[in-house]
Amino acid sequence: MASTQNGAAAAAGSSAAGGVPPVDKEVDFANYFCTYAYLYHQKEMLCDRVRMDAYHSAVFRNPHHFRGKVVLDVGTGSGILAIWSAQAGARKVYAVEATNVAEHARELVRANGVADIVEVIQGTMEDIVLPEKVDVIISEWMGYYLLRESMFDSVICARDRWLNPGGVMYPSHARMWLAPIQSGLGDKKMEDFDMAMNDWNLFVEDTQSYYGVNMNALTKAYRAEHEKFYLKSSIWNNLHPNQVIGQPAVIKEMDCLTATVEEIREVRAHASLPINRDRTRVAALAGWFDVHFRGSQQNPAAEEVELNTAPDENGGTHWGQQVFLLTPSLRANEGDIINVSFSMVRSKENHRLMDMDFTYELQESSGKKLPAISTKIFLE
Amino acid sequence: MASTQNGAAAAAGSSAAGGVPPVDKEVDFANYFCTYAYLYHQKEMLCDRVRMDAYHSAVFRNPHHFRGKVVLDVGTGSGILAIWSAQAGARKVYAVEATNVAEHARELVRANGVADIVEVIQGTMEDIVLPEKVDVIISEWMGYYLLRESMFDSVICARDRWLNPGGVMYPSHARMWLAPIQSGLGDKKMEDFDMAMNDWNLFVEDTQSYYGVNMNALTKAYRAEHEKFYLKSSIWNNLHPNQVIGQPAVIKEMDCLTATVEEIREVRAHASLPINRDRTRVAALAGWFDVHFRGSQQNPAAEEVELNTAPDENGGTHWGQQVFLLTPSLRANEGDIINVSFSMVRSKENHRLMDMDFTYELQESSGKKLPAISTKIFLE
Repeated sequence: MASTQNGAAAAAGSSAAGGVPPVDKEVDFANYFCTYAYLYHQKEMLCDRVRMDAYHSAVFRNPHHFRGKVVLDVGTGSGILAIWSAQAGARKVYAVEATNVAEHARELVRANGVADIVEVIQGTMEDIVLPEKVDVIISEWMGYYLLRESMFDSVICARDRWLNPGGVMYPSHARMWLAPIQSGLGDKKMEDFDMAMNDWNLFVEDTQSYYGVNMNALTKAYRAEHEKFYLKSSIWNNLHPNQVIGQPAVIKEMDCLTATVEEIREVRAHASLPINRDRTRVAALAGWFDVHFRGSQQNPAAEEVELNTAPDENGGTHWGQQVFLLTPSLRANEGDIINVSFSMVRSKENHRLMDMDFTYELQESSGKKLPAISTKIFLE
Repeated sequence: MASTQNGAAAAAGSSAAGGVPPVDKEVDFANYFCTYAYLYHQKEMLCDRVRMDAYHSAVFRNPHHFRGKVVLDVGTGSGILAIWSAQAGARKVYAVEATNVAEHARELVRANGVADIVEVIQGTMEDIVLPEKVDVIISEWMGYYLLRESMFDSVICARDRWLNPGGVMYPSHARMWLAPIQSGLGDKKMEDFDMAMNDWNLFVEDTQSYYGVNMNALTKAYRAEHEKFYLKSSIWNNLHPNQVIGQPAVIKEMDCLTATVEEIREVRAHASLPINRDRTRVAALAGWFDVHFRGSQQNPAAEEVELNTAPDENGGTHWGQQVFLLTPSLRANEGDIINVSFSMVRSKENHRLMDMDFTYELQESSGKKLPAISTKIFLE
């Protein structure tokens, strides 16, 4: 044998039939938190200029939300948002971090002269206790397609336990988008899949002839495993805007001040996506998100800031977009509409990953509808 | 944020100071066993012809060890060794597998017509109970540099609980080798490391000028993290035999019939490695292993079979060799000797990974010794 370290997907964790499986904390550390303990990974996020500019502007263009206030940073990482909050005039900042990167956050806080204001607390939001309520909760909690990682749960927990009435959330609002795209990715993945299956067939022949064992009984399972890997797994991509060949639709909106875990545990939506390109092929749907910093109705931002992860010809963000292949793809023309029913629920094996279902149908401009097709996609 | 799935190394698991840390089973599944649940990974092992040929020969050239006997296969995976054991005439084969690949093993056993002989049991060796003792324990338990993965612990457990007196182990013996090598890998990794640090320095400048935060406090930690990654981590490589520039030495021998967990938990050795090439540079030490199938003194093999993972011009195995960079490297000549003190202990954070210490010194043919140098290497 010889396994590579953490080479593969979800943990063989607990899975209570139906209902919400309990989370094994140690497994969650092994699968999830551990990646954030690396400075390499912290740097990657700190080098995302779109991300950094949005948070920086949100904090420094809204000093009235920070001056003299108490701030909580959920998942502070290297501590940058906590340091900015202090620089913007906060009276006190609690910076909570589950991993050992907390130690680095402490160093950085000291080196930037805000150790009297920022208190780094190592622990999970669910476990720790603050000495007081807070006026602002700031957090960079967004995962791929917004909800992967399920980290917003911890922000909700923080809000419900520690946010003062009238307090504000940074960011304050979030949206998930879905759009039809053209892309060569589907053909490429299909080729890879075919090659993998050819290779398997040769292996079955060889194993029979050299070693007297018939492996054919596993062909179906091998095909399913590889179909999932190549065709049914969501693909990270930084798309060019001209790959978007129809009207994007918002499929989920969230007010961070009022959102509940129930509301994000299972997201369901219908969308009609008008195609705006002639003689095109809809190879996939793409998903991305944006968040806004606009304070609350009671306590609005002086200047609203947006962090948008849509396809951008100037490069985009480390989140990129998620591509959900349509197999088969659809030939379409301007004026056609793609009707999509969508659901996204947490994987039973690992609550930080997502299982998605798409049912899509092409409605031609004449009104004629092609048969609907259903496909599963895994966001892992 | 946006983390990749299982992107990084050891779990933030338990670490009892000193002593042997307890193993959290669920974490162990998340970090280790899960990778073996994939048929992709099983196929990779089944396509390793050196590995397959050795086990196949060992079983079929020693039918007296199998005919009418009871066999236990520890970590059966796809079930191939269990099926061969049945084909070689075993009366009964217990095939134990911890992961869900057990289900595939069952299918394969059925499809190959040996379901009346092979019983697949899903569970860990430490937990399961067999209805009888066994005559043969067969297992492919070897990890990188033999001991990574610590899977031999389970084989020892199986042996102590279930092997009949006079029973045999397949394989029966194992050895770890160490040799001086020439390689461009060290220069390449040093370049990568320098580039990573240059990149970090630019990042520190940018973060100060654009975002008003001084990241310099983390430079030391970033350097340490990247030095570990590029220079202090053991590197998988399939070496060419002409890269070996001195006499390899056996640094550990094990009789699988008598080896204890205590004996492999901590391996210490001294080796003198004579250089047999002139005007050469010892860039690294390389480690590999071999195992033998020779039965026991009481019950020897009819034909001894070897599985060797040494550098091989015909390609080698999926284990390759492990390269341990010497930083700095040593200039050496024929007749010089490299004296090495070596220790390998299990990582406190994850008992399946290894922390190694090397102290190496060049002893010139004149007898003159250069100052000894110590370095840590992580086998992760």
